[in-house]
Amino acid sequence: MGQQVYQHTLPNGLVLLAERMTHVRSAALNFLVPAGSAFDPPGKLGVGSVLAGMITRGAGDRNSRELTLALDNLGVDRDESVGAVNMRFWGSTLARNVPAALDIYADILLRPHLPAEELEPVQALALQDIQSLEDSPQTKVMVELRRRYYPPPLNKDRRGRAEDIESLTIDAVKSQYRRLVRPRGAILSVAGNIEWEPLKAQVERLFSAWEPGESKDPVPEVHQPQSEHIHKDTQQTQIALAFPSVTVNDPDYYAARAAAGVLSGGMSSRLFTEVREKRGLCYSVYAFHETFKTQGTMLAYAGTRSERAQETLDVTLSELRRLKDGIEDDEIDRVKAGLKSSLIMQEESTSARAGAIATDWYYLGRVRSFDEIQAAIDGLTPAAVLGYLDRWPVRGITLVTLGPNPLTLPA
Amino acid sequence: MGQQVYQHTLPNGLVLLAERMTHVRSAALNFLVPAGSAFDPPGKLGVGSVLAGMITRGAGDRNSRELTLALDNLGVDRDESVGAVNMRFWGSTLARNVPAALDIYADILLRPHLPAEELEPVQALALQDIQSLEDSPQTKVMVELRRRYYPPPLNKDRRGRAEDIESLTIDAVKSQYRRLVRPRGAILSVAGNIEWEPLKAQVERLFSAWEPGESKDPVPEVHQPQSEHIHKDTQQTQIALAFPSVTVNDPDYYAARAAAGVLSGGMSSRLFTEVREKRGLCYSVYAFHETFKTQGTMLAYAGTRSERAQETLDVTLSELRRLKDGIEDDEIDRVKAGLKSSLIMQEESTSARAGAIATDWYYLGRVRSFDEIQAAIDGLTPAAVLGYLDRWPVRGITLVTLGPNPLTLPA
Repeated sequence: MGQQVYQHTLPNGLVLLAERMTHVRSAALNFLVPAGSAFDPPGKLGVGSVLAGMITRGAGDRNSRELTLALDNLGVDRDESVGAVNMRFWGSTLARNVPAALDIYADILLRPHLPAEELEPVQALALQDIQSLEDSPQTKVMVELRRRYYPPPLNKDRRGRAEDIESLTIDAVKSQYRRLVRPRGAILSVAGNIEWEPLKAQVERLFSAWEPGESKDPVPEVHQPQSEHIHKDTQQTQIALAFPSVTVNDPDYYAARAAAGVLSGGMSSRLFTEVREKRGLCYSVYAFHETFKTQGTMLAYAGTRSERAQETLDVTLSELRRLKDGIEDDEIDRVKAGLKSSLIMQEESTSARAGAIATDWYYLGRVRSFDEIQAAIDGLTPAAVLGYLDRWPVRGITLVTLGPNPLTLPA
Repeated sequence: MGQQVYQHTLPNGLVLLAERMTHVRSAALNFLVPAGSAFDPPGKLGVGSVLAGMITRGAGDRNSRELTLALDNLGVDRDESVGAVNMRFWGSTLARNVPAALDIYADILLRPHLPAEELEPVQALALQDIQSLEDSPQTKVMVELRRRYYPPPLNKDRRGRAEDIESLTIDAVKSQYRRLVRPRGAILSVAGNIEWEPLKAQVERLFSAWEPGESKDPVPEVHQPQSEHIHKDTQQTQIALAFPSVTVNDPDYYAARAAAGVLSGGMSSRLFTEVREKRGLCYSVYAFHETFKTQGTMLAYAGTRSERAQETLDVTLSELRRLKDGIEDDEIDRVKAGLKSSLIMQEESTSARAGAIATDWYYLGRVRSFDEIQAAIDGLTPAAVLGYLDRWPVRGITLVTLGPNPLTLPA
């Protein structure tokens, strides 16, 4: 299967990406718009999420009900979500329905009604979202970790603050829309059984009138992360930690991914073996890498019974720290096998490809070919991972725990 | 894409199913073995889950570590899970690695070591699984509903009972293995870029020596479901309910699926519109159909703030009950569009197809073709759904709620 990727930038800044996959009948589309929660103004935390909930409630010639019906009639499975930097609109349907779906998304992005009478139910849902976090300690601990670890404004959670959401006006929502839902910095990616020239012509027709506005990446403030224990009478103790790593455009990026892979990339990985298999401390323990344009981070999570929470933290940290003491060839071989399997699975999924090409463009300004990724995976060695660990040792850990008792970070 | 499905039954009863998908490079395999939690003996509730945790800890010539390494070296993404009736082994990897993966799975199923020294960590994990349910009220309410709604032994949850798990011996685990992990009633399905004849020859070679044992479906006892409120000082109130519907081999099956679809099959569906969009009562509200061989069930779930929990239950039940008063043509058209989109997505995923052909065989003793499913979807009409609702009205509801205050089931 030769990879067919196309790219075109409109004069207003909107980037269109497409990957043609002729062996499928479906297609997925993915908009990234730089209107994430980092851009929520002070006193209006959560306005981005409220906007995402409002923006589909009527647009163009359709009221809220008509718009929802139109997308359901096309069989579009869809979702709107708000990340720290980007608001994301995802949809998946039959390839032949993509043009009709794009017509509707152009209305949503360029001509939303944002009707005042819909604000109250959207606010109620946003308040629920905050409240339900209290009943989901596994989710809450990661939210609280990111809030403390990342510098403002990257540390803002999409859920915002209850007081702020309660006091939001429709004008604040409209102002957020006008300021941020703009084509400069936005990316539309489509993957599936589509034709490039008609797609490009349609996108030019639909989106050329979208006015640029200003484009900006969020600028991180100087910040000192703080560890914290959050007391809660839960049955289990939740453990989350973070420390600095590389960004996605660093030459060490795949070495960092491989380090996370040696720790928790498969059933035979170190954390899985030591924490889960040998000691039965918890089902769910993992380390992973995540990245902003300005900083990369290694994170780890475990949720366990409170009596053995300190032991779980100790074993997890010990595994993180002893990585630098040596990595076997066959550990790296297994990481490679896992990464290659994942890559091939991704090649077979329109949603995964639409997401991957948009993410590549966002971070790198280009789409990596399968050959390039394959070569980066093939080039992994224990020495490369040890080199990364030497440059980025396990240091500056922020630890957030949630449960009945605080834990001690081992020295 | 013409569908290529193959089937072969070994003399010992094992059914092999395969779907050849030439447009992909991956393949997924799926074993269903009738060793689910319904077969956990009294006093040993949870032994099936412990067995599933033990069965991969060494088999054939490999000890626990070697077995895990062998599967990770092949890049096999995998999972073992225990349902009410079946234990399920799922794996996904490159198609060319399937033969090597099958060799290992034959060891796991036919020659597991079940080593005594591994029992303790597996027990610890099983106890965690029970404990973590207390911190996941959304999951807990569905577990508690099924426990009360379904007749024994179909109402047994895989997690079992803490006292029983603590007192399990290795002999009890071995006895469960010998009694239940048998080829009669078991199904192995493979979907992806595979060749039928070599696959069939390998499966005959690997599994012919597997001794049949007895085969049995679990026999439901006579049972009177009980509604209940479970008091818990959560932030939100969880609502779950169930009432009788048709099984998957009933002529009304697709009408029942369509009824669930009109209620919660898309953003424009009735529950979504009335509960979420108009009133902002909760993000998560849905109705769905599930089935055993002996009985089908319609279930519904909502999780919401406690002050508005009664209103949420009232609106949900009112929507369930007024379905019989009339369904519009365009509602059914949207359900059809959604079901067809899902069907096409499924055609493109090896994991989805491996699961679907095994499930079809389990319930129907045959694999439905895409054309047959398409025709069933095309044949849906408002009259067909109303006919189903007439035969299977909303009656005999079991309601389980979890939260600070009990709710009243509206008359």
